[in-house]
Amino acid sequence: MIGLLVGRFQPFHNGHLKAIEWAMKKCSRLIILVGSSQKCYELENPFTVGERIEMIQRVLEKRGMNNCMLLSVPDIQNNALWVAHVNSLVPRYDVVFTNNPLAKRLFKDSGKKVIEFPMMDRLENEGTKIRKSMLKDNKWQSLVPEEVKTFVLEIKSIERLKEIINKDIV
Amino acid sequence: MIGLLVGRFQPFHNGHLKAIEWAMKKCSRLIILVGSSQKCYELENPFTVGERIEMIQRVLEKRGMNNCMLLSVPDIQNNALWVAHVNSLVPRYDVVFTNNPLAKRLFKDSGKKVIEFPMMDRLENEGTKIRKSMLKDNKWQSLVPEEVKTFVLEIKSIERLKEIINKDIV
Amino acid sequence: MIGLLVGRFQPFHNGHLKAIEWAMKKCSRLIILVGSSQKCYELENPFTVGERIEMIQRVLEKRGMNNCMLLSVPDIQNNALWVAHVNSLVPRYDVVFTNNPLAKRLFKDSGKKVIEFPMMDRLENEGTKIRKSMLKDNKWQSLVPEEVKTFVLEIKSIERLKEIINKDIV
Amino acid sequence: MIGLLVGRFQPFHNGHLKAIEWAMKKCSRLIILVGSSQKCYELENPFTVGERIEMIQRVLEKRGMNNCMLLSVPDIQNNALWVAHVNSLVPRYDVVFTNNPLAKRLFKDSGKKVIEFPMMDRLENEGTKIRKSMLKDNKWQSLVPEEVKTFVLEIKSIERLKEIINKDIV
Amino acid sequence: MIGLLVGRFQPFHNGHLKAIEWAMKKCSRLIILVGSSQKCYELENPFTVGERIEMIQRVLEKRGMNNCMLLSVPDIQNNALWVAHVNSLVPRYDVVFTNNPLAKRLFKDSGKKVIEFPMMDRLENEGTKIRKSMLKDNKWQSLVPEEVKTFVLEIKSIERLKEIINKDIV
Amino acid sequence: MIGLLVGRFQPFHNGHLKAIEWAMKKCSRLIILVGSSQKCYELENPFTVGERIEMIQRVLEKRGMNNCMLLSVPDIQNNALWVAHVNSLVPRYDVVFTNNPLAKRLFKDSGKKVIEFPMMDRLENEGTKIRKSMLKDNKWQSLVPEEVKTFVLEIKSIERLKEIINKDIV
Repeated sequence: MIGLLVGRFQPFHNGHLKAIEWAMKKCSRLIILVGSSQKCYELENPFTVGERIEMIQRVLEKRGMNNCMLLSVPDIQNNALWVAHVNSLVPRYDVVFTNNPLAKRLFKDSGKKVIEFPMMDRLENEGTKIRKSMLKDNKWQSLVPEEVKTFVLEIKSIERLKEIINKDIV
Repeated sequence: MIGLLVGRFQPFHNGHLKAIEWAMKKCSRLIILVGSSQKCYELENPFTVGERIEMIQRVLEKRGMNNCMLLSVPDIQNNALWVAHVNSLVPRYDVVFTNNPLAKRLFKDSGKKVIEFPMMDRLENEGTKIRKSMLKDNKWQSLVPEEVKTFVLEIKSIERLKEIINKDIV
Repeated sequence: MIGLLVGRFQPFHNGHLKAIEWAMKKCSRLIILVGSSQKCYELENPFTVGERIEMIQRVLEKRGMNNCMLLSVPDIQNNALWVAHVNSLVPRYDVVFTNNPLAKRLFKDSGKKVIEFPMMDRLENEGTKIRKSMLKDNKWQSLVPEEVKTFVLEIKSIERLKEIINKDIV
Repeated sequence: MIGLLVGRFQPFHNGHLKAIEWAMKKCSRLIILVGSSQKCYELENPFTVGERIEMIQRVLEKRGMNNCMLLSVPDIQNNALWVAHVNSLVPRYDVVFTNNPLAKRLFKDSGKKVIEFPMMDRLENEGTKIRKSMLKDNKWQSLVPEEVKTFVLEIKSIERLKEIINKDIV
Repeated sequence: MIGLLVGRFQPFHNGHLKAIEWAMKKCSRLIILVGSSQKCYELENPFTVGERIEMIQRVLEKRGMNNCMLLSVPDIQNNALWVAHVNSLVPRYDVVFTNNPLAKRLFKDSGKKVIEFPMMDRLENEGTKIRKSMLKDNKWQSLVPEEVKTFVLEIKSIERLKEIINKDIV
Repeated sequence: MIGLLVGRFQPFHNGHLKAIEWAMKKCSRLIILVGSSQKCYELENPFTVGERIEMIQRVLEKRGMNNCMLLSVPDIQNNALWVAHVNSLVPRYDVVFTNNPLAKRLFKDSGKKVIEFPMMDRLENEGTKIRKSMLKDNKWQSLVPEEVKTFVLEIKSIERLKEIINKDIV
């Protein structure tokens, strides 16, 4: 069974890792799809998709998670087209892992099987919390895998995040 | 005389119906243009354009309003092009019915005659109110034509609206 | 049963009319979808979508074909999304009428029923032939319904077509 | 040395003029790039790019500032592409004048030299303040060059701004 | 009187210069609009818009043609919107100089005055001829102003053109 | 050293495999980027990007080529932005493998090191040849890896290709 898991991963954090490990027990291969791929250098989306893929790749490699495949998907203006858009971009899959009610509805309406994570809080909320902590130089390091921490420091993301606060380029 | 009336119709409500009936007294044919056609599965725009056309179509048919023509227009990034965009999408028309100050200005600047509705409040506000009522299972049914009520229940829009609250797909 | 029929209608000709009349015998309502709606003022696509809708509207009205609904669809870059794109733009339908092999395949793959017209030649070829005849002031008039002929002359399309030959605006 | 200065200029105000005069002391030619060129008829962006260019052109001409060149750039979805986008649109330049932290970072990362203005407050804030004053018929006139004041009144921008308050066209 | 002249300028050649000089006798200011601004590194469009602006700028400066203003416009998908698109991008103008039949028609239909050049051949044909000569290292130098020749050699365009022959990047 | 190799892979063939094997000798990891990702169901581009990724994935897996990473990139309108676009989509890399003269130029101009394959003919030509053979049921099977052959037959691509011959959907 091949699974699909979509996320923005701004940045990839411990909650994402747990979700992936949980999903991997249910399928032989997992497609991890990095969403909103065009968004970057924004307060809600500081990392480019290339950077997000690089940080996740390091986490997977370190843990020998070879059955995960990393791909990306840009946003599409019309939500009614989103599932067809995703389907054209990835190999065939059997099941979608998501707790997002809208994604759940759209995938189900298109005939896909959906499995929810047995977890309390939304993964997105954790991302928001981490970005806020990064801005305040608070203890964000313990909320992400070691490899992400190293990568974030290596590319000087904290400085970038503080510059982005000013919002518009123009 | 051929008239043009633009709206988002999220959903089509009694205020829209009254506006159309009023406009139909002034013209022999009315083009009803469903705007922001690409927007759907959003809190402010729950319905696809196909769904909006279907619900309006039922209302018109039931009332024998054969002189109305239903078309749609997607948003365009640059407001200065909006009237030319509309004009390329619809048959020729003589007059525009609108209370929206910006639409009024743009149509007038392009040389079109504009007629305002002799009504107090903005039709958009009514739409916002109805969507909020739908979310709370409040009495929204009396604010829309019977055919819209049936359609909304038929396609299970209330459930959808509640799922959309969570906002982003990714 | 509700049918869907897609065409570019550059211009609407006798072949289209015959196809619609044939389809109308099989369904209670027909959605006529004007495709490539953004294309106009080009040799292959001289008419705006508004003009195409206006000419078809006249033909339908003259013949009392009230059960036809006219809508339009712009092109989408990715063919794999085309059916989802169409579905978001029109009311629900039961069957598609088309002889185009690719459209047939895409609609079938998405689970739609497809009916082919029992006719020899492609409707598109007829359109090409008519545009060529228009350019040479050849006898194109007999190939389109009377109302289309009147409309084409009324908006001076033949002159436009000859200007378009020069191709690029810039 | 050729300089580049990017701004939205909604509208062009005294702060912009001072910034340009300061930059002109450091370079032989200055490219003034009008950003977010597609935005107009919005509360934050009332003027079309053509109007912004016309008002700046008048200011430069009146002051004999012949070494300034006016060009425009539309927004691009992906911030990571913004500098390459700018570079494809303007003649070659040696240095960028900006106080915007994000722009500074992006230009520096692409290898460009950046010079900051020795001024306290952000130019954008001044623009916001002026638009608010225009809406309230407050004393905005003293905050912009004489030519801008004349232009703003000439094209009746204050009326437009008040109409835009209603926000959406549809 | 303010004039508008649109061209692709791939590259700017003697025919363009003659056209501008002729137009400048009829107006006090001329807006030179570089069209298809997004096209570059293609056989028909080798130069970026920044490069085209830089080469024209040099020609104008050398000849003291200070009353010319250089701006650019990207293509727009829908030809019916092209004039509105141009109008939003440039300052107000009184007359358009063009020999292109389609541009003539579109500007006239929008109410603009059009003046044709009293010249035989299309300026576009000359551009095609020059690009072909460049590819064959034929005598293209005499067909462009001295400043363009210098610029073309300076940025090594001939080498680029030969590389582009292979067409697709991917 | 991390390498980048871009191709359309319509379909993935023996030439691609040889190129990848050659590149893998020079680097520790190779990013295989599937270009023109939005193109599909066209004569030149029959496969969706998801299908192309699936066929390449099978080839790599069978051969234990774990150090290859598969990603995709949609086309971008402006060639001058192409390298920045690619860079935002993939992890950091050190060298590009390509024989395409334009890609070579663009990557070099952006400061990237480029290595050419020591092979005679263009990989694209081979793709064209294979698609033509597929259409004629000629011996295309020997020109692609075994896994690609199986995949092509499994998803009935030959039938699809024959349907696409008719070109436009509308």
